[in-house]
Amino acid sequence: MPQRYRIAAVPGDGIGKEVVPEGLRCLRAAADAYGFALDVEEFGFASAEYWLRHGEMMPKNWREVLGGFDAIFFGAVGWPDVVPDHVSLWGSLLQLRRGFDQYVNLRPVRLLRGVRGPLRDHGPGDIDFYVVRENTEGEYSSIGGRIFEGTERETVLQETVMTRTGVDRVLRYAFELADSRPERHLTWATKSNGISISMPYWDERAAEMARRYPRVTADKDHIDILAAKFVLQPQRYDVVVASNLFGDILSDLGPACTGTIGVAPSANINPEREHPSLFEPVHGSAPDIAGRGIANPVGQIWSGAMMLEHLGETAAAAGVLAAVESVLERRPDVLTSDLGGTATTTALGAAIAGHITS
Amino acid sequence: MPQRYRIAAVPGDGIGKEVVPEGLRCLRAAADAYGFALDVEEFGFASAEYWLRHGEMMPKNWREVLGGFDAIFFGAVGWPDVVPDHVSLWGSLLQLRRGFDQYVNLRPVRLLRGVRGPLRDHGPGDIDFYVVRENTEGEYSSIGGRIFEGTERETVLQETVMTRTGVDRVLRYAFELADSRPERHLTWATKSNGISISMPYWDERAAEMARRYPRVTADKDHIDILAAKFVLQPQRYDVVVASNLFGDILSDLGPACTGTIGVAPSANINPEREHPSLFEPVHGSAPDIAGRGIANPVGQIWSGAMMLEHLGETAAAAGVLAAVESVLERRPDVLTSDLGGTATTTALGAAIAGHITS
Ligand SMILES: CC(C)[C@H](C(=O)O)[C@@H](O)C(=O)O
Ligand SMILES: CC(C)[C@H](C(=O)O)[C@@H](O)C(=O)O
Repeated sequence: MPQRYRIAAVPGDGIGKEVVPEGLRCLRAAADAYGFALDVEEFGFASAEYWLRHGEMMPKNWREVLGGFDAIFFGAVGWPDVVPDHVSLWGSLLQLRRGFDQYVNLRPVRLLRGVRGPLRDHGPGDIDFYVVRENTEGEYSSIGGRIFEGTERETVLQETVMTRTGVDRVLRYAFELADSRPERHLTWATKSNGISISMPYWDERAAEMARRYPRVTADKDHIDILAAKFVLQPQRYDVVVASNLFGDILSDLGPACTGTIGVAPSANINPEREHPSLFEPVHGSAPDIAGRGIANPVGQIWSGAMMLEHLGETAAAAGVLAAVESVLERRPDVLTSDLGGTATTTALGAAIAGHITS
Repeated sequence: MPQRYRIAAVPGDGIGKEVVPEGLRCLRAAADAYGFALDVEEFGFASAEYWLRHGEMMPKNWREVLGGFDAIFFGAVGWPDVVPDHVSLWGSLLQLRRGFDQYVNLRPVRLLRGVRGPLRDHGPGDIDFYVVRENTEGEYSSIGGRIFEGTERETVLQETVMTRTGVDRVLRYAFELADSRPERHLTWATKSNGISISMPYWDERAAEMARRYPRVTADKDHIDILAAKFVLQPQRYDVVVASNLFGDILSDLGPACTGTIGVAPSANINPEREHPSLFEPVHGSAPDIAGRGIANPVGQIWSGAMMLEHLGETAAAAGVLAAVESVLERRPDVLTSDLGGTATTTALGAAIAGHITS
């Protein structure tokens, strides 16, 4: 009997609904080629439609509904014309990350063969690193409020919360990752010169963790200069670990330096496997291009490859990524507009699926 | 009698001490060429040396010492081997910005003629916008603390503080600036999908302000995608207004997209002119290259041009910037290493000063 995996597919909003089918197409092609089986169940929640019908983003029992799956294959959520972003996101994606304790958000930044990057002095091979983003606490808190509302004295407070548990576990993951790579180089993002309480704490914990990994060369960059260096010297980086907000920024900026955020994947991981992990592209629901069938499905497909890797199907994961690179390199006729082509989401997805072989 | 201006020069640490003299050299050349006079007084505080001698970064009466000057010409501060960055910065630069209510941090992002930028598809003229950064509140607060210190339960809180006064006044400045430019386009940076209290408030105030400037096309971008677009579509931007932290990040990233942060200037402005404004390069003290005489002085010199503009010497300001562009374009022999050359700080500064004519 082939190994079976239970996958919850949650397309969400906008282009999420266009790229998830292409991701699933490639996952099914990989299952055929590598001899495992996928049971995919699709869910319509985490979307503006669901919100309009139910006044909430997900069913109250979402833990039971999703908790039994081996993984969640997520599209994108957000449709600000219908529901404010902070409501839709805190009612779905951010709740899943936290509720399933997916405390690592792993985001590869790689200039793929076949993609023309925006940086004139950098080609494939030059840019190849990971952003490890803390995914449950930090700047993304919902603690705070307003006082003197509606008056000239109006004042708004928003709390950043860091815990030793939360900081140490993501640092440990990042140091382990760095220790497993040939360069063994880790950079932690900080802003301890300006943000004078939480960030010096982050630095302290990182310096402490660095002592436990003597083989890893560890250094820190302030987020402002780090962002600048992503553009000027991306080849410097190997593993970059960052707080929730800084990781969010760096993991859009990094992919932009490799040509398009349309190709960038992410894995929201619960390393202890007590809960399902969640795999989604870095891009959002993109209301501006939704419904036109022109979105780039590669971020979703590559997220599928990360999901296969997480499930233990390492060869299939590599096969999917090889198919992606081979199509990007050899099939200019199926590239989407962000890659300089004119093809549709489906054309690119189908071409990649067609290239998946074992 | 020529107009006289009283300038406080505060070189600070590291390369600040190398670039401030070049900035002053150019300011003096401009004074000669345009017929005004500068009384420059130099101060050694806001430096690690001062800290070692006095156990504080500035004299207690810094308000009296600096308050009477027409402007402050600042280098860079920070020497982490001697004093932690958050101590040195909160004890000097950040205190000056707040104490002198310099609530606008204005940072031009411009691809200068003669500079080879890192973006393959963008040349001079394509990138020319302003980052307007809130400079006194927001994420840069010193409110918060630690509980359960040293234990597994250790928890750290750091408050972001936004006030209606603080938010509205910087938005107003940015909208006024946009309204005065040909494109009349303003983008506000936000992260209201993830940071669910302060950032939705920022959005609300920006949307409210936009209603008062009907001629300005206003839109918003989340900071993650905005950072990506600085790399992929920098030509889209005209005026970008951002909170303290986001403005910090964007004003290093923008200049990186124009080749080097070594050329980027900034003006910390108290628009009401109740206190002196402060002019400093965007770059920091750069301990890694300090003492070698190779730092790029252009950020300091251009900051001097912004200071002249603020003082009302508009023609002289334009003259300094013209000299910068003409030297960058025609004198490869005096370029510093970040610009692809091998010349010293002094050689570049002297060449620019030599080109300043009325
Ligand atoms: C040195 C640091 C505190 C400062 C800041 O973050 O404001 C600097 O990066 C800047 O941009 O002026
Ligand atoms: C949509 C938004 C809340 C989300 C985030 O900020 O985490 C997204 O930008 C991401 O990076 O996954």
